[in-house]
Amino acid sequence: MKLLVSGPSPYAAKAALAARALAADVTLVDVDATNQSPELLAANPLGKIPCLVLDDGFTIYDSRAILRYLNRLMDGALFPTDHDALTAVEHSESLCDGICDASVAYIYEMRFRPEEKVHTPWLERQMGKVNRGLDTLMQNLPPHGSDMHAGSLGCAAAISYMKLRFDGRWEEGRTALIDWLNAFEEAHPDLAALLPHRQA
Amino acid sequence: MKLLVSGPSPYAAKAALAARALAADVTLVDVDATNQSPELLAANPLGKIPCLVLDDGFTIYDSRAILRYLNRLMDGALFPTDHDALTAVEHSESLCDGICDASVAYIYEMRFRPEEKVHTPWLERQMGKVNRGLDTLMQNLPPHGSDMHAGSLGCAAAISYMKLRFDGRWEEGRTALIDWLNAFEEAHPDLAALLPHRQA
Repeated sequence: MKLLVSGPSPYAAKAALAARALAADVTLVDVDATNQSPELLAANPLGKIPCLVLDDGFTIYDSRAILRYLNRLMDGALFPTDHDALTAVEHSESLCDGICDASVAYIYEMRFRPEEKVHTPWLERQMGKVNRGLDTLMQNLPPHGSDMHAGSLGCAAAISYMKLRFDGRWEEGRTALIDWLNAFEEAHPDLAALLPHRQA
Repeated sequence: MKLLVSGPSPYAAKAALAARALAADVTLVDVDATNQSPELLAANPLGKIPCLVLDDGFTIYDSRAILRYLNRLMDGALFPTDHDALTAVEHSESLCDGICDASVAYIYEMRFRPEEKVHTPWLERQMGKVNRGLDTLMQNLPPHGSDMHAGSLGCAAAISYMKLRFDGRWEEGRTALIDWLNAFEEAHPDLAALLPHRQA
């Protein structure tokens, strides 16, 4: 299988982490998402990465669908079967994705328009989501060791993306998140290289 | 349980459709998402609807997590257990969510900033995603009858949102989508009232 990725995206990182953690036979392929390359659009009409291309050509997106698919394929433990445990994992996953949605929206506001079109209240709205999301995450940190799950991968991707893109602007009072990422990287040295802040 | 919703959102509609279809004991509660009301932020730090508030106060977001949760709780059939069937449902769900993500981004560009800050290439980028997504959806329409699944609810929400917000600008060559929504509404008259285009 091929996993289409592009630069240090937290969503692509989450999918790549899952593939590596599950030991799935997946090759990472860099595509141009900024310019919506034909290769990407042929695989995903939404023009977004990550996109998993199966050997028969069928494509799977977005990151959340990819994690579910790979976990089933590899009979993994990223999603528990117990109802309450699964609810907690899904909570963690959607919180971390939501933090990424807002931080990526902030970065896109700077990247995809000239400076005079940047709307400060929009940036502030997104940073409000990011800040409240990170504070909530601190009270609900997922496991980072061998008992990690889909929410852990989302958490690693989200904190790493903050570290890459918002250096010096998010850390205050959030040592618990920095410690968590360090512990994750130490527990999973094979996964660490896939994190956004390692790919700058 | 309470489901926090706000105006004719396609994501809120999807969650409300699921609650009704599964006969879950859920009361819809309107909150002010535009101004990020304290009630909403207390339930969801990301300030987004839909958000499901359980009787013990635990909150579940986003729409995708809500659908999974309600389906398990009610022992529903929105997500099949067979691997291939589930992969198809997840594909349908993520495609429809992606269409909504782009169409909502388009609408937000008009709503959350003054006219002089609107960036036309950004609008065009979003409409490209919407148009390619709709064309792909036409080739992969989910079931609309009693065998409907999570992807069907996403499809109904997405087409209905197009009807509400992009009237006259998306229908050409897409009779199959209009017919699909009509058939869905006819098959599920109890659900039809929850669709965005009925709530204008």
